[in-house]
Amino acid sequence: MFLHIVFLLSLLSSTSHATVQDFCVADLKGADTPSGYPCKPPANVTSDDFVYTGLAEAANVTNIINAAVTPAFVAQFPGLNGLDLSAARLDLGPGGVIPLHTHPGANELLIVLQGHILAGFISSGNIVYQKVLKKGELMVFPQGLLHFQIAVGKRKALAFPVFSSAFPGLQILDFALFASNFSTPLVTQTTFLDPAIVKKLKGVLGGSG
Amino acid sequence: MFLHIVFLLSLLSSTSHATVQDFCVADLKGADTPSGYPCKPPANVTSDDFVYTGLAEAANVTNIINAAVTPAFVAQFPGLNGLDLSAARLDLGPGGVIPLHTHPGANELLIVLQGHILAGFISSGNIVYQKVLKKGELMVFPQGLLHFQIAVGKRKALAFPVFSSAFPGLQILDFALFASNFSTPLVTQTTFLDPAIVKKLKGVLGGSG
Amino acid sequence: MFLHIVFLLSLLSSTSHATVQDFCVADLKGADTPSGYPCKPPANVTSDDFVYTGLAEAANVTNIINAAVTPAFVAQFPGLNGLDLSAARLDLGPGGVIPLHTHPGANELLIVLQGHILAGFISSGNIVYQKVLKKGELMVFPQGLLHFQIAVGKRKALAFPVFSSAFPGLQILDFALFASNFSTPLVTQTTFLDPAIVKKLKGVLGGSG
Amino acid sequence: MFLHIVFLLSLLSSTSHATVQDFCVADLKGADTPSGYPCKPPANVTSDDFVYTGLAEAANVTNIINAAVTPAFVAQFPGLNGLDLSAARLDLGPGGVIPLHTHPGANELLIVLQGHILAGFISSGNIVYQKVLKKGELMVFPQGLLHFQIAVGKRKALAFPVFSSAFPGLQILDFALFASNFSTPLVTQTTFLDPAIVKKLKGVLGGSG
Amino acid sequence: MFLHIVFLLSLLSSTSHATVQDFCVADLKGADTPSGYPCKPPANVTSDDFVYTGLAEAANVTNIINAAVTPAFVAQFPGLNGLDLSAARLDLGPGGVIPLHTHPGANELLIVLQGHILAGFISSGNIVYQKVLKKGELMVFPQGLLHFQIAVGKRKALAFPVFSSAFPGLQILDFALFASNFSTPLVTQTTFLDPAIVKKLKGVLGGSG
Amino acid sequence: MFLHIVFLLSLLSSTSHATVQDFCVADLKGADTPSGYPCKPPANVTSDDFVYTGLAEAANVTNIINAAVTPAFVAQFPGLNGLDLSAARLDLGPGGVIPLHTHPGANELLIVLQGHILAGFISSGNIVYQKVLKKGELMVFPQGLLHFQIAVGKRKALAFPVFSSAFPGLQILDFALFASNFSTPLVTQTTFLDPAIVKKLKGVLGGSG
Repeated sequence: MFLHIVFLLSLLSSTSHATVQDFCVADLKGADTPSGYPCKPPANVTSDDFVYTGLAEAANVTNIINAAVTPAFVAQFPGLNGLDLSAARLDLGPGGVIPLHTHPGANELLIVLQGHILAGFISSGNIVYQKVLKKGELMVFPQGLLHFQIAVGKRKALAFPVFSSAFPGLQILDFALFASNFSTPLVTQTTFLDPAIVKKLKGVLGGSG
Repeated sequence: MFLHIVFLLSLLSSTSHATVQDFCVADLKGADTPSGYPCKPPANVTSDDFVYTGLAEAANVTNIINAAVTPAFVAQFPGLNGLDLSAARLDLGPGGVIPLHTHPGANELLIVLQGHILAGFISSGNIVYQKVLKKGELMVFPQGLLHFQIAVGKRKALAFPVFSSAFPGLQILDFALFASNFSTPLVTQTTFLDPAIVKKLKGVLGGSG
Repeated sequence: MFLHIVFLLSLLSSTSHATVQDFCVADLKGADTPSGYPCKPPANVTSDDFVYTGLAEAANVTNIINAAVTPAFVAQFPGLNGLDLSAARLDLGPGGVIPLHTHPGANELLIVLQGHILAGFISSGNIVYQKVLKKGELMVFPQGLLHFQIAVGKRKALAFPVFSSAFPGLQILDFALFASNFSTPLVTQTTFLDPAIVKKLKGVLGGSG
Repeated sequence: MFLHIVFLLSLLSSTSHATVQDFCVADLKGADTPSGYPCKPPANVTSDDFVYTGLAEAANVTNIINAAVTPAFVAQFPGLNGLDLSAARLDLGPGGVIPLHTHPGANELLIVLQGHILAGFISSGNIVYQKVLKKGELMVFPQGLLHFQIAVGKRKALAFPVFSSAFPGLQILDFALFASNFSTPLVTQTTFLDPAIVKKLKGVLGGSG
Repeated sequence: MFLHIVFLLSLLSSTSHATVQDFCVADLKGADTPSGYPCKPPANVTSDDFVYTGLAEAANVTNIINAAVTPAFVAQFPGLNGLDLSAARLDLGPGGVIPLHTHPGANELLIVLQGHILAGFISSGNIVYQKVLKKGELMVFPQGLLHFQIAVGKRKALAFPVFSSAFPGLQILDFALFASNFSTPLVTQTTFLDPAIVKKLKGVLGGSG
Repeated sequence: MFLHIVFLLSLLSSTSHATVQDFCVADLKGADTPSGYPCKPPANVTSDDFVYTGLAEAANVTNIINAAVTPAFVAQFPGLNGLDLSAARLDLGPGGVIPLHTHPGANELLIVLQGHILAGFISSGNIVYQKVLKKGELMVFPQGLLHFQIAVGKRKALAFPVFSSAFPGLQILDFALFASNFSTPLVTQTTFLDPAIVKKLKGVLGGSG
């Protein structure tokens, strides 16, 4: 066997230089590109770069609504850079709602871990696909379609959505309309909602324009 | 030169079999796949497969609103299959509005051909990027983000949006909410609109649930 | 507002045909392609196609080893087709081990839900990145690299790995070597293990050759 | 409703950091990568980054030939970076010709806006697919194949080609052969054109070698 | 160790169904799609599907020109389906020429095995990059750009080009112009070659129109 | 013809700026990204950037084992950057073995140039596909699967593997297990090899832990 080993050692030396890019941990200080952030030098990479602990604790949720989204996208978890995956944590109190939203850059797979969650999405053909999900059940939401999650029953709920991109994006409908600088006349013209309603919601959510 | 030609002819015969798939015109009767439709046999492909005339005429628009969208996606224009491109035609009368919508599957590049169009999109960060576009001007809308187009001024307008996919999809916000089977209690819970407003709009647009 | 609605209804009719492919639920009876399975006709798609309940229950685990992998790939969960996502469930008893394996077709993101799991992977540069993960912590494993998970401490453990493909594949090292038809002389020549060891393990695992 | 709003505001704060990359406007001063240019910092992005006005005017065309190509690729229109789309403007006088050329990096969809254009491409199988296109008609040209556009009839013509990449490239056959440093003996050997012809065309077009 | 083995066996049974698609050998009788051919059922796949012997022999070359291209694309070698690789064999006699051509669908990497080959390509910027390659040397040709290979010196030459697609395509300039149905007036208009030259070459190469 | 030429010259000037990125030769001093290295400025690119001579010579092989792998990945051959291709050279003495390994980031196509090589891979389904390859024969190895090459018979062998990525990676099983910092207890637990064997191999190969 010893002779084989000699071979192996020489093989190692000839190839060691060629094999650096198994991964590309994000250097978040570098300018990102359409494919992601520049890579941290491999020599500086440690096990901790591939681990994220920020979803371990339930988010600080008010007694009244009991709902929060905590992301683990590449900006939080640099080890995801270039790997086409990310995750988040949903904490929902009883009746808690993640309002209608889209992920412009990724498909979503939701894993329910606690409670009962009514989840659904609306297709381009204006059909709602929805279901009450229990612990351990999965639901998939195709990229870019409006969807929601609601804790049903009297129990709180917990779920981990995962995404097919390291930067899936998140556009929350109510924020886009009423917490942005989208002018009231334009909201009215492009949604057919009455100006009075738009103004009222913008007043509360802090929208301008 | 003659000798070279002999070479060329033999080269042709040896390679002719290898070079069929420059394109993949859709056989729309076949089952589609995640990458598109199966290919029509190359021997049956003609010039007409690569041409689409269905956007040449202005859409039949009512006197009152003067707005229409006519798609040239792969379902209408099979030559686009597998080519990551498609188009549509927007006809807008004075004040005509393409209401808030997204394309879940593609980026959009809008080419304005007539009139003045106020176009804009809302980012995940809830910032509205908008501009009045004139003839010959372009605007780009990243995938999956809410956007709109409005003919401003007293003139009608015409534009051709193009897309980075042969099946970009189209989700119109008002239809998703008020012309679908999305139940009124769920619309209310996930948008924070009052039930009375939701019911009224569903009544007009034909939504159920 | 009524006039706007008329516009909307005409817009709907002109575009309804163009917007079928938000998703491509697998028709598993069709022949798959490099991009996945053919799509089930949209008219036959229901909410259940986007939901998977097969990971809800702990796998039937023996008292002795207490470890099992249950996949939710496209073959089990047809709604994942074309969406570049899939999942699995790991049930680990105290000391349970998922032995060294790779996913040739996907990156993996592991979500730990119960217990303490020592997880790690080996890079092309022959460096081991490993960490003990607790409830709610995540670790990412780049595509194609050898990795493992072990329940440490005296408690059982539960985790959901998710993948960046609907068919990530799974190559378990011991099965590849000792449960396959890989001949003993070839295993010996290509791994430098002694034939006696190879034969012993093949005997137990059922390998031939 | 007020209580819901409180929830929304907390949701906003927890996710605002995660959602920066809806787009990646090119920083053209940065070094490009295989996926495009580095992104301009989102805080510096304005509506103007998503708009391009450089195709609005007809190119300055001579009375004799009346033909010009004006590109709107990522180098001109940084908002296209990473979005897999670009455009150009073709101005053709009566009889104007865009000579045989290829786009090595993109498929093309041509939108004819004025006049009659005879357009065609040659497949790998040496079949010419061609058609006279009128106002509002579209033709698609698969990536990398030789194609041309000619204004037919006595009228000038205008068209906007769009591309499936932000940097489609443009290789004009006559320039490649006769305006480059491609040596006359090599042109002759690899095209079977007589040296006298090659020299004459190189003399006019400025080729060397 | 025995107990671990029991675990392994149960692991095997639970996952065996999930792991079929490591590969997708082409069923050439099925209709191809933009991503390739449908997959042969895995149970029918044998070692021979992954092997191709058709490039082992030198092509039958005339004494006069001594040049031939033999492809190993997916149509010849079904095991390449979906794997983004293919190859060919170039046999060149002394002075043999592979005339100017492009691969519309792939980058090329040329491996020279015998003789001296002058190879080059022309960029979009009309610069020729060329070099004389010797045995064991490599040259890369970016997708869609015109390139050529010539055996220089008095020796014959042999090379294997490989491609970044299973169907790279092959458009030979002289065939596109003079062996196709591209009409003489159009060739003249789009290349600025004199009609007499075009007719002469079409006469020899068999072009029509 | 002269008038056409005038057109051509003006066309050239208007488009010259738009067509820089046919290629992206790696600037290896820049930080890499998930899509590869930043591009060397086109003005500095020469023919030599597209050529690699480092595989021309047989590797320095010991008399005893006669085997070596020499890579031509992007780190050695910067012209491959962004082109989804790379290569290597295998020199095998009589009986020489490339031990079990995977390429985590690419499919492989092996071209045998000399001698007889027994090559094979193991699928996720634990089936070995293997064959003795002769001069000029090809075999394909799907991404991420364990495979090997052995020179059979009494002759030395030579082969060029090519890959579907510019950085395919290389994980050699014995090095991952026995030349890394993978601790002996963990190797034992995750491979079911006896600690004595593990320690012995680590001793020879230099593994720690």
